Amino acid sequence: MKPADWLEKFGNALARGEINAATDLFEPGGYWRDLVSFTWNIKTFEGRGEIKAMLAATLAAVKPRNFAFKAPEWFTFETALGRGFGHLRFRDKGGKHCWTLLTTLQELKGFEEKAGSQRDSGIFKGTTWLENRVKESESLGVLNQPYVVIVGGGQGGIALAARLKRLRVPALVVEKNERPGDSWRKRYKTLCLHDPVWYDHMPYLPFPDHWPVFSPKDKLGDWLEMYAKVMELDYWGSTKCMAARYLEDKSEWEVIVNRGGEPYTLRPKHLVLATGMSGFPNVPVIPGADTFAGRMVHSSQYAGGEDWSGKHCVVVGAGTSAHDICQDLVEQGAAAVTMIQRAPTIVARSTTLMDLAWGPLYSEQALARGITTEIADLTVASLPHKVLPEMQKPVYAEMRKRDADLYVGLEMAGFQHNFGEDGSGIHALYLRRGAGYYIETGASQLIIDGKIKVKSGVSVKAIGQRSVTLSDDAELPADLIVYATGYGSMNQWARELISSVVADKVGKCWGLGSDTKDDPGPWVGELRNMWKPTQQPSLWFHGGNLMQSRHYSLYLALQLKARMENLPTPVYYLEPTQHLQ
Amino acid sequence: MKPADWLEKFGNALARGEINAATDLFEPGGYWRDLVSFTWNIKTFEGRGEIKAMLAATLAAVKPRNFAFKAPEWFTFETALGRGFGHLRFRDKGGKHCWTLLTTLQELKGFEEKAGSQRDSGIFKGTTWLENRVKESESLGVLNQPYVVIVGGGQGGIALAARLKRLRVPALVVEKNERPGDSWRKRYKTLCLHDPVWYDHMPYLPFPDHWPVFSPKDKLGDWLEMYAKVMELDYWGSTKCMAARYLEDKSEWEVIVNRGGEPYTLRPKHLVLATGMSGFPNVPVIPGADTFAGRMVHSSQYAGGEDWSGKHCVVVGAGTSAHDICQDLVEQGAAAVTMIQRAPTIVARSTTLMDLAWGPLYSEQALARGITTEIADLTVASLPHKVLPEMQKPVYAEMRKRDADLYVGLEMAGFQHNFGEDGSGIHALYLRRGAGYYIETGASQLIIDGKIKVKSGVSVKAIGQRSVTLSDDAELPADLIVYATGYGSMNQWARELISSVVADKVGKCWGLGSDTKDDPGPWVGELRNMWKPTQQPSLWFHGGNLMQSRHYSLYLALQLKARMENLPTPVYYLEPTQHLQ
Repeated sequence: MKPADWLEKFGNALARGEINAATDLFEPGGYWRDLVSFTWNIKTFEGRGEIKAMLAATLAAVKPRNFAFKAPEWFTFETALGRGFGHLRFRDKGGKHCWTLLTTLQELKGFEEKAGSQRDSGIFKGTTWLENRVKESESLGVLNQPYVVIVGGGQGGIALAARLKRLRVPALVVEKNERPGDSWRKRYKTLCLHDPVWYDHMPYLPFPDHWPVFSPKDKLGDWLEMYAKVMELDYWGSTKCMAARYLEDKSEWEVIVNRGGEPYTLRPKHLVLATGMSGFPNVPVIPGADTFAGRMVHSSQYAGGEDWSGKHCVVVGAGTSAHDICQDLVEQGAAAVTMIQRAPTIVARSTTLMDLAWGPLYSEQALARGITTEIADLTVASLPHKVLPEMQKPVYAEMRKRDADLYVGLEMAGFQHNFGEDGSGIHALYLRRGAGYYIETGASQLIIDGKIKVKSGVSVKAIGQRSVTLSDDAELPADLIVYATGYGSMNQWARELISSVVADKVGKCWGLGSDTKDDPGPWVGELRNMWKPTQQPSLWFHGGNLMQSRHYSLYLALQLKARMENLPTPVYYLEPTQHLQ
Repeated sequence: MKPADWLEKFGNALARGEINAATDLFEPGGYWRDLVSFTWNIKTFEGRGEIKAMLAATLAAVKPRNFAFKAPEWFTFETALGRGFGHLRFRDKGGKHCWTLLTTLQELKGFEEKAGSQRDSGIFKGTTWLENRVKESESLGVLNQPYVVIVGGGQGGIALAARLKRLRVPALVVEKNERPGDSWRKRYKTLCLHDPVWYDHMPYLPFPDHWPVFSPKDKLGDWLEMYAKVMELDYWGSTKCMAARYLEDKSEWEVIVNRGGEPYTLRPKHLVLATGMSGFPNVPVIPGADTFAGRMVHSSQYAGGEDWSGKHCVVVGAGTSAHDICQDLVEQGAAAVTMIQRAPTIVARSTTLMDLAWGPLYSEQALARGITTEIADLTVASLPHKVLPEMQKPVYAEMRKRDADLYVGLEMAGFQHNFGEDGSGIHALYLRRGAGYYIETGASQLIIDGKIKVKSGVSVKAIGQRSVTLSDDAELPADLIVYATGYGSMNQWARELISSVVADKVGKCWGLGSDTKDDPGPWVGELRNMWKPTQQPSLWFHGGNLMQSRHYSLYLALQLKARMENLPTPVYYLEPTQHLQ
């Protein structure tokens, strides 16, 4: 059976309400991932049983129709309320049974973004664009309440606000830093993105084609600042969110913010925490830290403005930030730079990763083959998280061979590396715990060359006035200690800004339940609480890398828009809380 | 003969140096327009004689080769130094003789822009992007001399600077206003572009697809400011060019600028006047003007910040600015608004113009048919200026029919209109004199409705303390007089900034020599002095609307880059000077 014929059969079965027939078109263990189009949720159904249960609950209201086959694996469809885009994947030769199906909501009927031929005319009609814009930006949050408040104005908050602006959902971003982009600008000076440019575009306004492969942080900062301006985002800089509480009786939030010293109370219907994967620093409590006479900072506060030449530096941690900071310290001419590695890190050479992992979807070559950013994003989305590790293992097996020099060198330098507990590599690890890897752009070579020293399999036991004592009793002189020890779950932001009750109700953010390190089971198959309804009504979490900020902001924006327009949004299977942090 | 076969024959004839054979492949009166690829000039050759003479002079050095037929009318080719793109047009059924040929230089071999797969990596190498950028921007014009100084930082100067930046030609823009975009921001408050968005993109970074059809001036201003920032242009705001002189012995310019009160001397090899078509106000000298007790301004100074409600307003002129300002004054509730029209104006309804004139090349429909901005620009470029009027007449004949209500209404209101002396409409008129038309977006209706009064076929004879006396002796009360009387030739800038000697040597800018009003003959077939070598070595003129700023900045940038790299750039047929202003 050709995929187009399969799709027709599937569409017909759904149209006739034949749930069994539709379900039987999947492999017994087949997958259906839905992004908001059937479920008003983000959820992967694994096997016919889950698929059938979902259809039984949603089919009558969703009324899927007009399935139309497009390019090889792609199709469009409609629901009662919206238009969708989907992807089909087969592995049986006959093409009778679908292995993986993706359905996504792309727009709401009657609430389409005004773009292309539907854009505004711009012609003067009584008030000018500037007058309207000034009035809108001065009144939102002061005279008028936004429908959505987004806490955090990094790429996540900005991308979401851009989508909401195009959907005409009044949204206000509050950001503690002064200007958009500052969350990047304030990092250590040598920071460049480790993901390539094709992966990093913001929605609607891609980088021009001379943009460097790995964006330097200040250049990215300028881009985000410009983006917020030309996309006309309502963005309060120098504004700290102090507290938020949900008023059940009014079905709205009360959000207290401090805007440049002035308190404001915002009353949005929805609250989005876009404070970032990397917003809540983990700082270990180590005996003697209070007696340390040098400088001790978390990696997020390591800005690189100071001069560490000739100094002894200890960096605790062995992930991306640890590597970058060690590299920066070597560049500065520090007397000694030591990385304290507790557990193995995944290391992959940037060029190899580009070639084997990103390249097929995010590269000039991919663009030349017609794979736009949108198609690339949807292709990534089409892979069920359960299947991903097996698909990634060959990539890393090949990498091990190709970059044997790198891995042997690291081993000889005493650096512990692996490709994840199950060899599935960086992408899977990122989804499981958001950390624990390094994309080699120079620091690994410094380790191999002995310019960055590594103490592995140890932790810091105690801190002295100018030293660090490790768990193997080795003592290192230290003028600087950097904790590149990562960040807490976004859940901690809910605890900090709202309450422990709400934080505990919502539970852990991120992670798939893979039952690997820092990703406890049970298996849930989707990132917990991300971009989808949570156990706390009207509280949403948004974050991740630039690709996720771009892609998933669409689905979060559509969920918010539908609610603003009072469309029915019955959520299928609200995930129960399993872990508190 | 198919176009591809014609092209092969043509390419072979050129390769073998068979100039007669190549020339005979054209219609006897055929056209060849070259943008920099054969001639290092912008020139249209009309008829076999001119084509033959050009080939005889250029062929040996240019060494054209590798002509490759692409989509229906398009082809690529190479020269000794560069790569080109071209267009073919036939009207004979047999396809034996080419009617119009366009050849354009697109890039210089070995000096390609670093974009796409050739972009920089961005990875940290000893100094950060920010350090490099700050150093570059602080030193250019102070410690290092730019290769090019561009006077004027509107869309023209900005587009050229962006292209030069990508070509790694050190260029400094000096602009009297504080910020990029201010030349738009400071205009009257209701101003919107009268050209549609598809026509208005800047190079490299198109507007996102929700951008309004007609950009409001402040929104465009913000875009230009953002653009200058993210394209990393070296842009001195609040900087007035005071004087420039060419030092023959050093083959360089000495340019004196005042930067926020501080004098600087710049020493570039090339000077570009991008002061704009609309930079040098024409203000008539009228008896009694010095006794006027109201406010009297040129349209360029009419900012709309003042309140004219209840006041008597006289607007001298009947072009775009006159219409827009009258409309603004009516909006403000002026007691009387009178437009003084001396000669007929071309009026075209915006929607009709979009449908009949812009739409086939610059619209969503065109994009859907695969006509990118670049293809649209080259299609426009492919039409020899000689041929344009005949091609445009049917458009305006249709317009006259379609919008009969508009034209009858205007006639009844005493407004004089035509479609140009020969009925060829706005685009031809724009090339001839850059003014004399209005694209209706509301003001014509106000004239028809009597809300803007028109006095036509008269001029202002005298000005009293609170009145204006017309040439028919009618007297109008006046609190405000606006001179919407247009702008001088860009040549006046050369006179003001350099010298009368140089201005006279260079002669008139703009105009085709059509021997119609304000465009005296003889026929030259290209805009005089625009984007191409002038009689003054190393002096260049750049300007026009957003489309021209985008498209022709490429050819000007390539000419400058070639000179910087000391490539041979023999100019074929430097146009003699014919008019002084």
